Amino acid sequence: MKNVDVLVIGGSAAGLVAAMTAKLNNPDKEVMLIRKEEKVMIPCGIPYIFGTLGNSDGNILPDGGLIQLGVEIRIDTVIDIEKEKRICRTESGTDINFDKLVLATGSLPVKPGWLKGSELSNVFTVPKSKVYLDHLMECLKNFKNIVVVGAGFIGVEISDEINKAGKNVTLVEILPHILGLAFDEGVAVDAEEQLKSRGVNVITGIGVEQIIGTDKVEKIKLANGELIEADAVILSMGYRPNAELAQNMGLQLNEKGFIKVDQYMRTTEKDIFAVGDCAEKRDFATGKISGIMLASTACAEARVAGLNLYSLSTYQSFGGTIGIYSTNIGASSYGVAGLTEQAALNEGFSIVTGEFTGIDRHPGKLDNAHKQKVKLIVSKDSKKILGGEIIGGTSAGELTNVIGFIIQGGFTLTDLLVAQIGTQPMLTASPAAYPLIKAAEAVLMKLKK
Amino acid sequence: MKNVDVLVIGGSAAGLVAAMTAKLNNPDKEVMLIRKEEKVMIPCGIPYIFGTLGNSDGNILPDGGLIQLGVEIRIDTVIDIEKEKRICRTESGTDINFDKLVLATGSLPVKPGWLKGSELSNVFTVPKSKVYLDHLMECLKNFKNIVVVGAGFIGVEISDEINKAGKNVTLVEILPHILGLAFDEGVAVDAEEQLKSRGVNVITGIGVEQIIGTDKVEKIKLANGELIEADAVILSMGYRPNAELAQNMGLQLNEKGFIKVDQYMRTTEKDIFAVGDCAEKRDFATGKISGIMLASTACAEARVAGLNLYSLSTYQSFGGTIGIYSTNIGASSYGVAGLTEQAALNEGFSIVTGEFTGIDRHPGKLDNAHKQKVKLIVSKDSKKILGGEIIGGTSAGELTNVIGFIIQGGFTLTDLLVAQIGTQPMLTASPAAYPLIKAAEAVLMKLKK
Repeated sequence: MKNVDVLVIGGSAAGLVAAMTAKLNNPDKEVMLIRKEEKVMIPCGIPYIFGTLGNSDGNILPDGGLIQLGVEIRIDTVIDIEKEKRICRTESGTDINFDKLVLATGSLPVKPGWLKGSELSNVFTVPKSKVYLDHLMECLKNFKNIVVVGAGFIGVEISDEINKAGKNVTLVEILPHILGLAFDEGVAVDAEEQLKSRGVNVITGIGVEQIIGTDKVEKIKLANGELIEADAVILSMGYRPNAELAQNMGLQLNEKGFIKVDQYMRTTEKDIFAVGDCAEKRDFATGKISGIMLASTACAEARVAGLNLYSLSTYQSFGGTIGIYSTNIGASSYGVAGLTEQAALNEGFSIVTGEFTGIDRHPGKLDNAHKQKVKLIVSKDSKKILGGEIIGGTSAGELTNVIGFIIQGGFTLTDLLVAQIGTQPMLTASPAAYPLIKAAEAVLMKLKK
Repeated sequence: MKNVDVLVIGGSAAGLVAAMTAKLNNPDKEVMLIRKEEKVMIPCGIPYIFGTLGNSDGNILPDGGLIQLGVEIRIDTVIDIEKEKRICRTESGTDINFDKLVLATGSLPVKPGWLKGSELSNVFTVPKSKVYLDHLMECLKNFKNIVVVGAGFIGVEISDEINKAGKNVTLVEILPHILGLAFDEGVAVDAEEQLKSRGVNVITGIGVEQIIGTDKVEKIKLANGELIEADAVILSMGYRPNAELAQNMGLQLNEKGFIKVDQYMRTTEKDIFAVGDCAEKRDFATGKISGIMLASTACAEARVAGLNLYSLSTYQSFGGTIGIYSTNIGASSYGVAGLTEQAALNEGFSIVTGEFTGIDRHPGKLDNAHKQKVKLIVSKDSKKILGGEIIGGTSAGELTNVIGFIIQGGFTLTDLLVAQIGTQPMLTASPAAYPLIKAAEAVLMKLKK
């Protein structure tokens, strides 16, 4: 029997950060992280192993931070938790006794049961396992025609990368546009055009009916009857929380299958926390249960857990989960923070939107200047900023975070209009035509009418 | 006699934005902008005309926004204001009657009287005048050895650009390091090494004693007696507010020569506002009078004035001036928002700092990944974030704005630790090692000790 103070189960971003924050905040406690994988993938880097990086070895989440802090790492598989006795049983036969437990068991890719032919060989999903991904990459070497199903961020980024690696890629999406859940139509259409211009065959508005083949996949049949040749199919149709261990030990799950937690990431059981893709999320704007899964959100939750293990220290400061995403297609980048216009309308907000298209350097004559478009979604009554969307160059990722902090800070339209921003010709838009502020002015102009 | 509702004097960033915001917020009012220059320089773009852009024509602040909104532009020089009669007299002989007046008369480069030889020909400053700058660029064509005096942002950027254009550039700075007023030593030293590695001769810790020459500049003499050959000298030794018109019309100036204003940018005279480099600033952290001059700050002030001309609408939302700067030297970029460690200590804050060096893409094996270092300055008592400094790649400008919004939003250390940020391999650092959050953790670790 091994004794530790804090046991974290799961080695991806949430587990890593939970263990580090726990140790950082409680230097005198013994913290152990237990995980299945010898080497852990950087989750958001996975699409890039297929093209830009060329292999998975350049995409490893380093252990240095854990080791430096003195967190013990154990490679083993947890088979059972006896929560009353606070004992964790592992495949290797070691029992680990803990004081506090953090579950960071992550998520698993969805392989829908209704999809005929999904059991054929050369039909893949995108889990976070290095072993699986290395096998997938090895298989792809021999193939020419690849069909990717589902055009969320993972599907879009993988399609772009596999295309970059010289394959003939078809991306199929049932919604009218790629990234259609993340962005309003304007931004989604821009991203779709970029992806098409890079040579990916994009088919939208049509679902997949069946995967056809004998033993191996040969074709994919769309809902309109169209057949597409496929040497391999990659399903990127979403992820489901990996909450089996939690369920087996008697923790409550919510209706979406996530482990129930409060705003300090405590489960229904004393001294047991859950963070990351397996843990329940509540939407920042509505408080409703949300199904969002992001490494960045997972890390924030992990810090919340780590800070609240032994005493509550983040009183009301974690206001729920906010979607802050960005992606990159060629020279263009796309970001969103908070509610899109469509999401705000679906929730019943009375809103005003404003947008402005400028340029991400100034003057625009500078090399590598890229169009920068900002759209803001503002509550008509409270005047709070509810969300924003961006098209831009490489600075679009951090500009998305600017909007993220504006939302998390509770800024109103007036606060934003008088906010001070730093500008520099090579790095940002002009102070007199900074698209974020100009978009706020466009909202003001509509309110004045 | 011409009648307008709102008259804005000055056509640079502050005047432009004040006029646009005034019109936007008061669509029924007649707004006129009067300025001396036919064509106005984008202020922060000026250094780049010397190298990257190659001419000033690519650095013009466009009039399109003003024209589109219906702001009248008049090119003329104001010679006098009769404030009781609300009449503006111009060089062309036209009198303009106004209801509200906004002074945006800007700043002028300092040419210190004590500096012997500063009257010699080929000794230049860097005003915002296109005519002057075109002349300066024409002169530089014939010269090889250029000495720049003063290593603030303008001096550093101009040195780098003139060096890029093939000249032999020496930059002289009396402080121990370049950018020494803006950054703490660590960041300043990094920037200095970058600039040196690009071929600029950097001399720090020594002032200039005299400019030597007969008629034309020939040499510059340093305080230690060293002589440096110079075909031309560019003085970038700061700017002073251009408040002569305001003084002549009886407005009160403060002890630093700025036009006194309240937090709605109203001068001591009813219906007269001042914005930008000519207007008084109060520091965000202390409320003390500040001498900071930034185009971005000027634009924020201009929006404050434009929103409050006819009725006060930004109650307590403009909390004072916050320095948010960034610059770029080669592949490296540098940013600061709020107080540096040194500035915080000088003001008497009890502080804790934390820093973290990571990488601005993830995994770090991606091409064009650049070191990203974040240093945070946190109040020991209130735990509020007082400032931050950044070394990074091209995303450092917007990451500086992230910190700017964190400060302006009043975030505490805990708020930041549990904040959600969006991350993407090609655009940002990793969620598990995002330097801004890791720097906050480093602060926490010190507080726990």
